[in-house]
Amino acid sequence: MLNSAVFNRAMKKWSREGGRLVVISSPTAGGKTTVCAALIKSDSTCVRSVSCTTRRPREGEKDGVDYYFIGEKLFKERIRQGFFLEWAKVHDRYYGTPGRYAEALLRKGKNVILTIDVNGGKQVKKNFKDACLIFLLPPSFKEMLKRIKRRGTESRPAVNLRLSTAEKELKELPAYQYLVINDSLNEAVCRISAIIKAENSKIKHAKEAH
Amino acid sequence: MLNSAVFNRAMKKWSREGGRLVVISSPTAGGKTTVCAALIKSDSTCVRSVSCTTRRPREGEKDGVDYYFIGEKLFKERIRQGFFLEWAKVHDRYYGTPGRYAEALLRKGKNVILTIDVNGGKQVKKNFKDACLIFLLPPSFKEMLKRIKRRGTESRPAVNLRLSTAEKELKELPAYQYLVINDSLNEAVCRISAIIKAENSKIKHAKEAH
Repeated sequence: MLNSAVFNRAMKKWSREGGRLVVISSPTAGGKTTVCAALIKSDSTCVRSVSCTTRRPREGEKDGVDYYFIGEKLFKERIRQGFFLEWAKVHDRYYGTPGRYAEALLRKGKNVILTIDVNGGKQVKKNFKDACLIFLLPPSFKEMLKRIKRRGTESRPAVNLRLSTAEKELKELPAYQYLVINDSLNEAVCRISAIIKAENSKIKHAKEAH
Repeated sequence: MLNSAVFNRAMKKWSREGGRLVVISSPTAGGKTTVCAALIKSDSTCVRSVSCTTRRPREGEKDGVDYYFIGEKLFKERIRQGFFLEWAKVHDRYYGTPGRYAEALLRKGKNVILTIDVNGGKQVKKNFKDACLIFLLPPSFKEMLKRIKRRGTESRPAVNLRLSTAEKELKELPAYQYLVINDSLNEAVCRISAIIKAENSKIKHAKEAH
């Protein structure tokens, strides 16, 4: 017969604790930065992970808010120390997600949002089986082109380079769990919030599957 | 290089179409009937599946709305015909979920909600790998007891019978994918809506895992 102890044991055994590590990736002009900013503003369970980088701050960027701006020597040392959940070298600059900071937030029950590329996403999934991977796409190819051009990428070769990268990234889509179409910003943010809520309602199985 | 055809092919290949079959089960006093009614009222993507039964209509119940009330001979014939997604015999009465009706709704993009017991849920999952199984629990054992008594089940043996059944049902929890705590009705409905939204955003993998 069911009693309080059995009930509580089942609750404890099958409920999730802590937050989720959420990766949001998109090919060029998918809108991951805008969507992530809106998500964090509207969903108080979500926080953005602040990455380390060796590139120089752009105008208006603040150390510790947009990035941790560090030197290449320190970055490489941290790679060796296993400091990063994932890292990448892009155009001779290093980018990496600090692990311990994210883990502390997760333990506090926060959902930690990483806006990183597909290679970063795959690295994260390898180290964190429990991570939730979301792929963001513009609603159509036409819209994608329009958004690329709106960003000031006008020259044919520059557009073509972005489209080649986008094709490679699109091939990684099956490594992801969720596909969100970024048609309206509101709808995309709502959908990602719903995904995170659902992920946190999943029954804790011994073996994680996606 | 990415072009419109490649983009559309990826979209078509990885996006889900149609609705989801959603099973909501709970042990006694979990509140699945109330939650389901509120869900259908607030989420227009959701429809309730109307079951067939051989039991007599209770006061106020309408044929085709609450149940399809049919005779035992017809029910058994339909079992043989594979008419039901799942069926059960409880206290000498038959209950079953018509398959074709649900399938037609799913094709129209509706999410079809079944409030059935854990055995029914397991039957559905066996036939519909894609089905989404949600287990609803009251927030505590104390609250569960309170709700059982509020329903007018006062006698000790009657309460004990319900609690034995609840213990058996709780053992089936790991067959489910999601656990929703029914503390506030609103919050539970919101969470189930989010789960359904997330399920419909899942990337269509060749092999379904939960």
